[in-house]
Amino acid sequence: MPVAKKIAESFQRSSWIRKMFEEGACLSETHGCDNVFDFSIGNPNLTPPAEFQRVLEELVCDGKVGTHGYMPNAGYRETRAAVADYLSQDQGVRIGADNVVMTVGAAGALNVILKAVLDPGDEVVVPSPYFVEYGAYIDNHQSAIKPVSTGEDFDLDLRAIEKAIGSKTRAVLINSPNNPTGRVYPESTISALGELLGRKCRQTGRIIYLVSDEPYRRIVYDGHRVPPVMAAYANTIIASSYSKELSLAGERIGYLAVNPSTPQAEVLMEGLIMANRILGFVNAPALMQRVVARLQGVGVDISPYRRNRDLLYTTLTEAGYSVVKPEGAFYLFPRSPVEDDVAFVKELLGHLVLAVPGSGFGKPGYFRLAYCVAPQVVDGALPVFRRIGEKYFG
Amino acid sequence: MPVAKKIAESFQRSSWIRKMFEEGACLSETHGCDNVFDFSIGNPNLTPPAEFQRVLEELVCDGKVGTHGYMPNAGYRETRAAVADYLSQDQGVRIGADNVVMTVGAAGALNVILKAVLDPGDEVVVPSPYFVEYGAYIDNHQSAIKPVSTGEDFDLDLRAIEKAIGSKTRAVLINSPNNPTGRVYPESTISALGELLGRKCRQTGRIIYLVSDEPYRRIVYDGHRVPPVMAAYANTIIASSYSKELSLAGERIGYLAVNPSTPQAEVLMEGLIMANRILGFVNAPALMQRVVARLQGVGVDISPYRRNRDLLYTTLTEAGYSVVKPEGAFYLFPRSPVEDDVAFVKELLGHLVLAVPGSGFGKPGYFRLAYCVAPQVVDGALPVFRRIGEKYFG
Repeated sequence: MPVAKKIAESFQRSSWIRKMFEEGACLSETHGCDNVFDFSIGNPNLTPPAEFQRVLEELVCDGKVGTHGYMPNAGYRETRAAVADYLSQDQGVRIGADNVVMTVGAAGALNVILKAVLDPGDEVVVPSPYFVEYGAYIDNHQSAIKPVSTGEDFDLDLRAIEKAIGSKTRAVLINSPNNPTGRVYPESTISALGELLGRKCRQTGRIIYLVSDEPYRRIVYDGHRVPPVMAAYANTIIASSYSKELSLAGERIGYLAVNPSTPQAEVLMEGLIMANRILGFVNAPALMQRVVARLQGVGVDISPYRRNRDLLYTTLTEAGYSVVKPEGAFYLFPRSPVEDDVAFVKELLGHLVLAVPGSGFGKPGYFRLAYCVAPQVVDGALPVFRRIGEKYFG
Repeated sequence: MPVAKKIAESFQRSSWIRKMFEEGACLSETHGCDNVFDFSIGNPNLTPPAEFQRVLEELVCDGKVGTHGYMPNAGYRETRAAVADYLSQDQGVRIGADNVVMTVGAAGALNVILKAVLDPGDEVVVPSPYFVEYGAYIDNHQSAIKPVSTGEDFDLDLRAIEKAIGSKTRAVLINSPNNPTGRVYPESTISALGELLGRKCRQTGRIIYLVSDEPYRRIVYDGHRVPPVMAAYANTIIASSYSKELSLAGERIGYLAVNPSTPQAEVLMEGLIMANRILGFVNAPALMQRVVARLQGVGVDISPYRRNRDLLYTTLTEAGYSVVKPEGAFYLFPRSPVEDDVAFVKELLGHLVLAVPGSGFGKPGYFRLAYCVAPQVVDGALPVFRRIGEKYFG
């Protein structure tokens, strides 16, 4: 075997997803890109905002000597300060530059956090459905994922979370707005979760971290607001990125921030910085750090996502599908008309529509549509959803 | 404890290095930057070449839509093809785009490689002295570093390597030009190492990878050439970056390349791409991938490094220090005049010269000077080295 056993196993787990992607690529070749409707990947289709382009040009053309070299592993001081200022307003907690580490995207931030806090054999409670890579991230650090089902409306089931927390629990990892459901956990839920975790810390005598993965924080609809996790709980670490709000997913620029109220916050910060170094990230990309320092609070215009959401939600609902209306992010997670979500996704594929089965998110019986796509992709797929709806619900 | 046990342990191990850095920062504040001579960090002081600035400006100002989003996890096809073409010439082996993964620097590449090939309990043989983070990288993947001393001249000791290889050995990790010694392993050594590893693979029935960390490949002096590792051994994986040759250390842009002759090279590549994803790197930064695609073979003018090397080597040698002349990279690794290298580095600190003790590289009794510094840093330190040399050797 030329690769490690775990890697070989992960091939097996993801082999049918890969096969689907390959089939999708073949379909595009056979039928032409315009005739294939690809909702499979969360790669923002919107261009970064004009401010991004302006700041990038300015920084590149000033040609400052030495600005592509190493900086401290946590990132440029001025970038960390800018992020901290923005977060302080957002979270209602006074966060300093010293509480922020710039990271290689949110995925980098999550691995840094998990490396810094998990001992082998620890457990991380994760509400399901969840972003499939969480399992791998937690396993990278010899710990176990403990999935806990959310309710019918995809809100957190606090009683189930309470039951799942045990003597090995080191963290609860939430993602709001959620991938794949689009759910934004309401303030009351977050506040009750904070209360629950505080109680559990006291009971177990261990710090249980709330790790909040928030890359979709600014992509919310209908006046929804993502409640501030730091205001609700002291032992909170936020992981986030500019991948979605500035459409920079390929540039790998994100951050993590620690609630200054957590005990020994400085030791934790030192651990996070150390983890950033020894995992091989070393630091977040230099130029993009300098760019985002000047773009705090700037985001893409999300109205194209809203249009896609509305069209898909209305069409699917009218056609008989059961769908929880997404409040944020750019995913819809309808119930599959048939129990076997993989079979259903294959059926969609037959109509040149690419989706991901709920099984890929720990929730069989559903399917995910990523609607960060061009309007014509949505428009082209609507008749297919109607036709298939007719078949199952008509 | 707010952090994982291993992280807490790594604080302890590195605590005196950190203390020294902090002392160094204090010194700069007290005495002024110009009066402190800092040889502690391998952060290239040279500006990236003019071609880099030109290509970066061109790419940024063309403002192509969508070029900051995700691409395949292995990187842009055209970047991988450009790297493969350049490497093919360099290595004398026909490497294709499919044998290359773009990575978050060489540190990212090394972690991706180790994740892809190491099972828990495996061993990695590493010639010492070695870059201190290797130990952490290998430990990240639940494997053990097996250091093997090099000879007096810092060339590989093949008999010692042969003895160190056992039934758990999965890889031998070399670094040439070497950090901290500046040694370039000669062609005869590399060829004998290839022969040895081939024999060991046949004996053990396991693939033993040669992982060659080569970020200093283009920084060589006096007509030295880094021999091609792929020509010498089939199961070779190269890790490298543009951090040093283009002075882009903060941008985190590097790559790995697999010898197409290794058995099941495609499965290995799949594993490497999977590891790049699940470790949280996801992909190498997009813009820098597009930049380096057009800068293959371009490098900084290394004559300032050569000047520093020559001045330091001559002065130290004349003052009585025992130094192996570096053939590449930008490090000198002289023998400490006293056995206790930490004490000696502290003595240097008293004269406002910052160095790193050999203990930090698994080789007590030596010290490392990183001479990727401004000429005045070298000029200012020379009298100190002479004075201290007088004391010990005069």
